[in-house]
Amino acid sequence: MRAAAVPAGYPQFFAGGEGARVRDVDGRSYIDFMCSWGPIILGHRHAEVEAAARAQLDAGDCLDGPTEHAVVLAEKLVATILHADWALFQKNGSDAMTTCVTLARAGTGRRKVLVARGAYHGAVPWCSPSLIGVTAEDRAHLLHFTYNDISSLDAAVAEAGEDLAAIVVSAFRHDLGVRQELPTRAFAQAARAHCDRLNAALVLDDVRAGFRLNLGGSWENVGVRPDLAGYSKAIANGWPLAAVTGNARFRAAGEQVFVTGSFWYGGAPMAAAVKVIEILERENGPARLEAAGKRFAEGVTGSAARHGFEVSLSGPPAIPLMQFNDDPDVRLGEALCREALARGVYLHNKHNMFLSLAHTDSVIDEALDAIDKAFAALARNRTAVA
Amino acid sequence: MRAAAVPAGYPQFFAGGEGARVRDVDGRSYIDFMCSWGPIILGHRHAEVEAAARAQLDAGDCLDGPTEHAVVLAEKLVATILHADWALFQKNGSDAMTTCVTLARAGTGRRKVLVARGAYHGAVPWCSPSLIGVTAEDRAHLLHFTYNDISSLDAAVAEAGEDLAAIVVSAFRHDLGVRQELPTRAFAQAARAHCDRLNAALVLDDVRAGFRLNLGGSWENVGVRPDLAGYSKAIANGWPLAAVTGNARFRAAGEQVFVTGSFWYGGAPMAAAVKVIEILERENGPARLEAAGKRFAEGVTGSAARHGFEVSLSGPPAIPLMQFNDDPDVRLGEALCREALARGVYLHNKHNMFLSLAHTDSVIDEALDAIDKAFAALARNRTAVA
Repeated sequence: MRAAAVPAGYPQFFAGGEGARVRDVDGRSYIDFMCSWGPIILGHRHAEVEAAARAQLDAGDCLDGPTEHAVVLAEKLVATILHADWALFQKNGSDAMTTCVTLARAGTGRRKVLVARGAYHGAVPWCSPSLIGVTAEDRAHLLHFTYNDISSLDAAVAEAGEDLAAIVVSAFRHDLGVRQELPTRAFAQAARAHCDRLNAALVLDDVRAGFRLNLGGSWENVGVRPDLAGYSKAIANGWPLAAVTGNARFRAAGEQVFVTGSFWYGGAPMAAAVKVIEILERENGPARLEAAGKRFAEGVTGSAARHGFEVSLSGPPAIPLMQFNDDPDVRLGEALCREALARGVYLHNKHNMFLSLAHTDSVIDEALDAIDKAFAALARNRTAVA
Repeated sequence: MRAAAVPAGYPQFFAGGEGARVRDVDGRSYIDFMCSWGPIILGHRHAEVEAAARAQLDAGDCLDGPTEHAVVLAEKLVATILHADWALFQKNGSDAMTTCVTLARAGTGRRKVLVARGAYHGAVPWCSPSLIGVTAEDRAHLLHFTYNDISSLDAAVAEAGEDLAAIVVSAFRHDLGVRQELPTRAFAQAARAHCDRLNAALVLDDVRAGFRLNLGGSWENVGVRPDLAGYSKAIANGWPLAAVTGNARFRAAGEQVFVTGSFWYGGAPMAAAVKVIEILERENGPARLEAAGKRFAEGVTGSAARHGFEVSLSGPPAIPLMQFNDDPDVRLGEALCREALARGVYLHNKHNMFLSLAHTDSVIDEALDAIDKAFAALARNRTAVA
């Protein structure tokens, strides 16, 4: 998050947040549709989650080993995420996805890893979207397919041959700046069938989507269960935590690989995560997030149309990407976001956004009202922008 | 930290900590000489640090971008760590060391990275101490030297030739289970001279030692400054944080490489880190930690001698490794630790230990009294153990 990469008009430094709102250091408040780029799923500073985390924090967070919350959370994940027979804990989404690949290689004794072209799986050399400072060998055993394209997957599997360790898939296609796609059932089943036939690992990158789409795992929506999955972002409503879940087949690999980090057993984030999952279950979280996302999408597209624009929201409603239909250089998108920011709504036009349970109907309607004024301003300045 | 890897007699789950003491889930209290494997440098739940972190936590930790603490901490690190012209923030020590290597490659346009044989720089495929799930290509551009052995360094530099990107050095030699060594001035200068001559990066892994030995950087003690350095562990007294510091030469590389993580801009750990450094400066931290470590080492070795054992503590007094002189299978070491645990003192016999500012003279003396009784018990059972 380089300051240089933040578009003009965006606040660069933040002071705090509450519910669906964030506040910048200049005291301006925004209805937040980024949710800290995913972590905030219940709203900023959710009282029950904060209380759970602070109960452990008051006793001590980073100790000489894990707290009881490591066991409680592992059991909670195994009870909730349907493919999971065990769990391990880390800090970053990149940690989780790197460890999934290491586990797949350890468990299969093979090396080739298939990833979708353009997919984001983390910011470390084997998967970084940038090649600056990365060597060719860091990517030596990667092969590529196109998301939702079965024949490209078949070809990559054939190329890997007997050395296929893993097929790594995002929960849905969420490449930066590209119209989002949900996985097709046929594609998901093809990936599962290849892994079953070849004893390879199907690895689900549920870092971005996890807990928003389906508490049982995001590919439950297409009826397919992975062998290994990576979680982070929303798992603890902003407390730093990542997790790998695995099935029994990869338990031995999980016992063998060496992964560790100084803060991975901090108890407060795990206590937070247990509470987050309880609340999402109690509140029927994914269904409410989808409803909130649909209300938001309908409002935005309707408002756009009223002011003479065509805007699409793609991907799951709870994690929507907003794009003008004819805006190849995203000048309209950026201009709309600037106008919305000036009216107290924090949107994004290249990266997907995130809804939270704090995005109630009244909050969304308040945001939509400001967004409608933003489209009106954009319509007035259309010639200047386009 | 697998339960299976914890020696018999060690508690596996912890409930809390305060000052120099930790408490396990069975209610037993221990004087803690692991300090959470390094992070705790002021004592568990240090009041000023907790207050600083919670002030931000009360407003919101994980927001849509950094808080002001990112700027304050970067300025504090640049003012404190003498080679540093800039800083970036992460979560794990492995993040920091991986990013140092990426920065070295980006800044030099070369690939070869020299590391000491047996050195620990993290738990990711390029540097993990385990090869399980790791491919040969993950290590393709690593070359090895022996710590403190200039001719082995010269040979590795020659082998890298014009492709030398970095020499990576630990602050001191702290390989697991091996007698620790401080760097010699001649070795440090040789590493610096090679990097100067070849325009390569000297990378200091200060993750384990950082802030305990010298606030200006651990190699200030031998008069050598790195180009890049990795920090984590003690930086925020247990709050999860890592940092990379770099000099002006690598600023452009720092602006180019792609590194990001969902929780890296959390404000609370950064507020904690600013306070930690202030307190270490005010309290003359490194000198007091060295004095505490010397008191501990003299007490332990004296107690050992009184009971007929020879025990050495190696490495910097603030981060000592305790070994029996004739104990190749560490049975004596393990037995001593068990006896000490039974008397309320948490030691380690293979991994180095860590002192904190909460290890006052009276706390150390209380621990030494229990350790003396542990040696006495060991002497009574010597035949059974050895």
